Amino acid sequence: MREVEGCAFPTRDKPVALLCELPELAAIGDDVWREALSVSEVITCPAGTKLIECGSSADKFVIVLQGVVKVYETCENGREISLYRVNSGQVCVLTLTRLLLRSNRCAQAMAEQDVRLLAMPPEYFNRLLAESEAFRSYLMRSMAHCITDVIQLTAQVSFKHLDLRLAQLIRKLSSQETGSRICCTHQTIANELGTTREVVSRLLKELEHSGHIKLNRGSIEILDREKLEDLCLG
Amino acid sequence: MREVEGCAFPTRDKPVALLCELPELAAIGDDVWREALSVSEVITCPAGTKLIECGSSADKFVIVLQGVVKVYETCENGREISLYRVNSGQVCVLTLTRLLLRSNRCAQAMAEQDVRLLAMPPEYFNRLLAESEAFRSYLMRSMAHCITDVIQLTAQVSFKHLDLRLAQLIRKLSSQETGSRICCTHQTIANELGTTREVVSRLLKELEHSGHIKLNRGSIEILDREKLEDLCLG
Repeated sequence: MREVEGCAFPTRDKPVALLCELPELAAIGDDVWREALSVSEVITCPAGTKLIECGSSADKFVIVLQGVVKVYETCENGREISLYRVNSGQVCVLTLTRLLLRSNRCAQAMAEQDVRLLAMPPEYFNRLLAESEAFRSYLMRSMAHCITDVIQLTAQVSFKHLDLRLAQLIRKLSSQETGSRICCTHQTIANELGTTREVVSRLLKELEHSGHIKLNRGSIEILDREKLEDLCLG
Repeated sequence: MREVEGCAFPTRDKPVALLCELPELAAIGDDVWREALSVSEVITCPAGTKLIECGSSADKFVIVLQGVVKVYETCENGREISLYRVNSGQVCVLTLTRLLLRSNRCAQAMAEQDVRLLAMPPEYFNRLLAESEAFRSYLMRSMAHCITDVIQLTAQVSFKHLDLRLAQLIRKLSSQETGSRICCTHQTIANELGTTREVVSRLLKELEHSGHIKLNRGSIEILDREKLEDLCLG
């Protein structure tokens, strides 16, 4: 696992260029926001970097400028479940909750793609909250979205059978690809769904037997998309 | 299901008396907070009142002053899972997210005991957020706690077998009783854990066969507390 590398803004116009592409952030025009940006760092992390180690301190307020951060939970026996994604322009609410509660409670975050993060000193976070209405509105909506996303996931995990959640995940992954082939391991799928590789492999084999998919080494091919859609309806 | 009944403060000193017992709220001393209280309503609801109907509008900022509100999620076939409890002195974060996102996404809330709620016009919520540092701090911590609680639940639902979660729930319920008898139906337990009554009845029978508990009509008696504690360790 690589280390997070921090660097001051290489040039003054770079963060502005990044922010221009993020409408919600670009809309925050206050002086205090510009001042906060000038003292913030842009941190670049390659895909796979663990951003929050269980037990480590989180002492900055973090916004994702580019790329995607996956927030996930693990248990003692190594199983994982993905909780939510932080996309570009969004607050890393997990870091914020750790900052607010001064807690080291275990949830983890990893750069799923190469990411650029804005890391702001917490005193500027407090000033922004006090002085910028646009920032407050942005932040409150971010936290509210995070809460509803995690509640929705809890309901899915509780109410939906794993085979249905697997079919829906395959559909989602295939919508991100151009062809009918998804490149991912059974372990990656298990980590997404909060189960074991063995269970995923068994369920995938059942989907192969029923003609929905074909399993190849390191990839899954969708054979009958219509049949898969029917399955996703539950 | 009973209707929520609203009433203006019956007397001026009543909310103050209620707030005095809630240290986090009593600590907010700002003028804007006192002003906000003077325009807020205290709503009294008996246990069992549904506070947020799926699809209804939530147009006030709500704090629980007395009693406990259960926030839960339901699915089409009627199954339920408890997400978290809002205790006295806490913000109803669910109402707040609905207010912030102007969304009718489905999660529901019910008075688990008789409750008294403080219902504040949203414009005062915004003023408090802008003008009161103590309120901001209280609110941000409330939202952060809600997020970590729901994340913790998601992890439990994903990683822990239902028989373990059932044993832990029995232990928790028995810690709230004086004797070794818990009065609750199998359906109540099912709704707490996000499963069906049939599954709960089957698992309870297994616990009875193994000598952990004895099942009576409408109650569960703990026969061997030490054995139950061992089971809760997983």
